[in-house]
Amino acid sequence: MLPVFGHLNPDTDAIASALVYAHLLSRQGLPAQAYRLGDLNFETPFVLQKAGVEAPPLLPVLGAGTAVALVDHNESAQSAPNLRDLQVTRVVDHHKLGDLTTMQPGFLRFEPVGCTATLLLKLHREARLSVEQADAWLMLSAILSDTLHFRSPTTTPDDREAVAFLAPIAGVRDVTAYALELFAAKSDLGDTPAAELLKMDYKVFPFGEAAAPQRWGIGVIETTNPGYVFGRQAELMDAMHAARQADGLDGVVLGVVDILNGTNRMLIPGEMEAAVVQAAFEAPTVNGVADLGNRISRKKQIVPALEKHFEASAEARA
Amino acid sequence: MLPVFGHLNPDTDAIASALVYAHLLSRQGLPAQAYRLGDLNFETPFVLQKAGVEAPPLLPVLGAGTAVALVDHNESAQSAPNLRDLQVTRVVDHHKLGDLTTMQPGFLRFEPVGCTATLLLKLHREARLSVEQADAWLMLSAILSDTLHFRSPTTTPDDREAVAFLAPIAGVRDVTAYALELFAAKSDLGDTPAAELLKMDYKVFPFGEAAAPQRWGIGVIETTNPGYVFGRQAELMDAMHAARQADGLDGVVLGVVDILNGTNRMLIPGEMEAAVVQAAFEAPTVNGVADLGNRISRKKQIVPALEKHFEASAEARA
Repeated sequence: MLPVFGHLNPDTDAIASALVYAHLLSRQGLPAQAYRLGDLNFETPFVLQKAGVEAPPLLPVLGAGTAVALVDHNESAQSAPNLRDLQVTRVVDHHKLGDLTTMQPGFLRFEPVGCTATLLLKLHREARLSVEQADAWLMLSAILSDTLHFRSPTTTPDDREAVAFLAPIAGVRDVTAYALELFAAKSDLGDTPAAELLKMDYKVFPFGEAAAPQRWGIGVIETTNPGYVFGRQAELMDAMHAARQADGLDGVVLGVVDILNGTNRMLIPGEMEAAVVQAAFEAPTVNGVADLGNRISRKKQIVPALEKHFEASAEARA
Repeated sequence: MLPVFGHLNPDTDAIASALVYAHLLSRQGLPAQAYRLGDLNFETPFVLQKAGVEAPPLLPVLGAGTAVALVDHNESAQSAPNLRDLQVTRVVDHHKLGDLTTMQPGFLRFEPVGCTATLLLKLHREARLSVEQADAWLMLSAILSDTLHFRSPTTTPDDREAVAFLAPIAGVRDVTAYALELFAAKSDLGDTPAAELLKMDYKVFPFGEAAAPQRWGIGVIETTNPGYVFGRQAELMDAMHAARQADGLDGVVLGVVDILNGTNRMLIPGEMEAAVVQAAFEAPTVNGVADLGNRISRKKQIVPALEKHFEASAEARA
């Protein structure tokens, strides 16, 4: 059974795409099993319940040389801790290509679309396989979640077309109403401890020189209720300081994305982060918050700007 | 115009796939131009003449940040000298993934098939575009060349199916006869200087620890007339010594592949190479030649075995 898994701190796309790709490969004669690399967020159980699908189990420790398939990520910092010892034979992803290498030629499918599930729908079509209802629910939900129902600048015509194609198969008549339900589930953060809120959708990125990179933790909370998050600003700031120290990071930031308005106000815990965010985004930090305007996509807007900033700094030092 | 190019020391697949992919992208509304990264081998002009297509021009020096598409390779050592400064937006390849990274999400299509052109045929089909006759000639020839008419262990059912599909479009009635013509053209090495013979199909690979890799130059001569090559063994050995020193390499080897018998006898210029080849392939070197039997694929058999050997050595030292 080929293990298939998405990134650490899984979001709906990481879970849904692992389930759908494992099912697709199994239907194509390659038995595969979906796994997750962490606890579910608040949105994904809602999606799984709609689709009538169980959550995938936690990835066990895999022996060196085990063949694996990655979805929705490719960088080792976001993957199984021993990824370097595993044999990556398949990747379906919509992120930039990081430090992945393969020992043998593999199946890699990357396209700059808004969601991995959009690529999985293409794989169904190319294999001339019909889409089953549960898979349609999963893919539809992942696309609405990743693109914030087409509000994110990562959205492409392929994502819109995929949703239009999948909605009738899933049996969703009103996509807008379903997206609002999804976002309400995502925003129902309850009394989750601040440290968990920070890490719910959180990735560590290396920036600058490969030999001695700056490592930054970048969290995002996408919510229809940003007031709730800012009401817990002090606790979140403490959690960010603690994460920076515990994980030996150079910086930690947390973008608070107002889904319905399409805006991003970022929590900035320290002067160093404030200086970098000022330089990279020309955004001053006021009372611990930097207003990034409509730069809501970590992948397409936040990370590339930080990458550019740190590369310029590295060159200036060289 | 998006520049599209294959690897250094271009073979027929590197040239044909650059031409076909540039044409496909242009038909899809993304104007693209094929380039080559070196002189043509002896086979490719024969193919271009059959297809009625001009050789692509040499790649000019591209400014930093220029968007480019790669075909049939992805490692920087095999690419444009300033690849690190360019923006790779598209890759179609059938090799293992090396040190490629991208600044933004891109279009990457890797599959473990025998030839890049097999993937380009898939891209035509997925885009529902008909294949034009010249492109059919180019793809058909590249597949026959890369798979040695299905003799190479890299051959997959997709490659066979692609040839069966393309032959009638190209107007090739007898594929076996055409493949023999192709291999005769490839084998007509004339009075080419030994240094050029060595570098005709030659790639430099880093092995072992990424921080301090061993760099090896691995040449291949695929021929229906191995007697001709062994008749020039002394000159070739001199050329290999010279290349090792001039390029600061740790090792240089040259596989002489007998196309029709599907066997590989490798020229080994020194004791260090002999020791590594003995350890990696259990093949002793006798009079400067190591018999590798039917291990004829650099990509699938030679490079992975060397990779495994150097990784084991690095671990033993650690």
